[in-house]
Amino acid sequence: MHRVKVRVVEDVLDANATIARANREDFERAGVTVVNLMSAPGAGKTTLLERALPELGSDVRAGVLEGDVQGSFDADRLASMHVPVVQLNTGNGFGGECHLDANMVRSALPQVPLGELDLLVVENVGNLVCPAEFRIGEHHRVMVSAVTEGEDKPAKYPLMFRACELVLINKVDLLEQLDFDLQKFLYHLDAVHPGVPRLLVSARTGEGVERWRDWLRAQAAVPVEAR
Amino acid sequence: MHRVKVRVVEDVLDANATIARANREDFERAGVTVVNLMSAPGAGKTTLLERALPELGSDVRAGVLEGDVQGSFDADRLASMHVPVVQLNTGNGFGGECHLDANMVRSALPQVPLGELDLLVVENVGNLVCPAEFRIGEHHRVMVSAVTEGEDKPAKYPLMFRACELVLINKVDLLEQLDFDLQKFLYHLDAVHPGVPRLLVSARTGEGVERWRDWLRAQAAVPVEAR
Repeated sequence: MHRVKVRVVEDVLDANATIARANREDFERAGVTVVNLMSAPGAGKTTLLERALPELGSDVRAGVLEGDVQGSFDADRLASMHVPVVQLNTGNGFGGECHLDANMVRSALPQVPLGELDLLVVENVGNLVCPAEFRIGEHHRVMVSAVTEGEDKPAKYPLMFRACELVLINKVDLLEQLDFDLQKFLYHLDAVHPGVPRLLVSARTGEGVERWRDWLRAQAAVPVEAR
Repeated sequence: MHRVKVRVVEDVLDANATIARANREDFERAGVTVVNLMSAPGAGKTTLLERALPELGSDVRAGVLEGDVQGSFDADRLASMHVPVVQLNTGNGFGGECHLDANMVRSALPQVPLGELDLLVVENVGNLVCPAEFRIGEHHRVMVSAVTEGEDKPAKYPLMFRACELVLINKVDLLEQLDFDLQKFLYHLDAVHPGVPRLLVSARTGEGVERWRDWLRAQAAVPVEAR
């Protein structure tokens, strides 16, 4: 019984990988660097994009593909800052998918003006489990972990912390008000993903956002064919 | 294609409902009230249980079934407070299930001393999407929403807020440090689940915890056959 279940899951992931490759080819043909941005609900993904994208400068044309179960709150926020944004809702039919997959992203691509972009950030559904299991054709995976979520998160959700190549440790402006032990968090982080780059940031105060912006700019500057 | 997908999902939920009913019968036979506690990662479920359960008094014998993708951090915390706790990990095989379902709970029941309990709290995997879709045989569903997650959460994850009968609005000790608009949160909450009972609490300072404890005590006091 368990065997069968694993088999089905493998098939799903095989199918996803095939579509992710097709997405990736489309991104590379258009010369667009794609970042998959993941976190738990309310960790600050949208605010970090509001802070970083409008000030990237005219040399990096950035857009966002916004994944949500329902609604367009985040897309509206980004659009009001003149960032090109396409909304993708996962809530059709059933109670809603808890992650984006390659096919959902593919279905949205006709709406995304790839030819006018250098950088596309895909803001995933807020969830620390399933988004890490589904590649969408991205070049980079970044996750946001807010200090308000507690220092045990890397140990409890290891796949997510292992899957990303940059961790934004957000809401550090609240550190003084919390019992959060940063050293303990970093210990857990290095246990599951030794040495993964990490940036201490506060989307609220702007602390550390310049380095997040620099990171995005650096990724967009590398020709995607060269990866 | 979409039709087929919905069919499969319905079958999964049908199977889940059948097992949930069997769990429920076991709970009622043993006279145990069962609460399914859900939230995003790091909202404070465990701390709210640490605060509430040890002081329920000897008239309510409480235990916890602790759901996690991996590890036993929360179970260890509760066990150190002399709360009987059984760990249930969803991470076997694949990258980990993002929710508990009725069958996982059923598989753990032989370890749970139902005959020695009046109240069993099942702490679900931290996730605002899928746990709301899977009944586990519980009598009550409670969710925790931390103010650090932002005021838009009911609008973005409506199924979760609709599925529960009590919302614990946690981390209110941080309200002064945040830009969180409580009235806006309550507006969104009442839009998706009008009038749902809600308690403002701080697991950290203890504010409002007495009312959460009273709620648990009241549920445990109702004979489960009478529901």
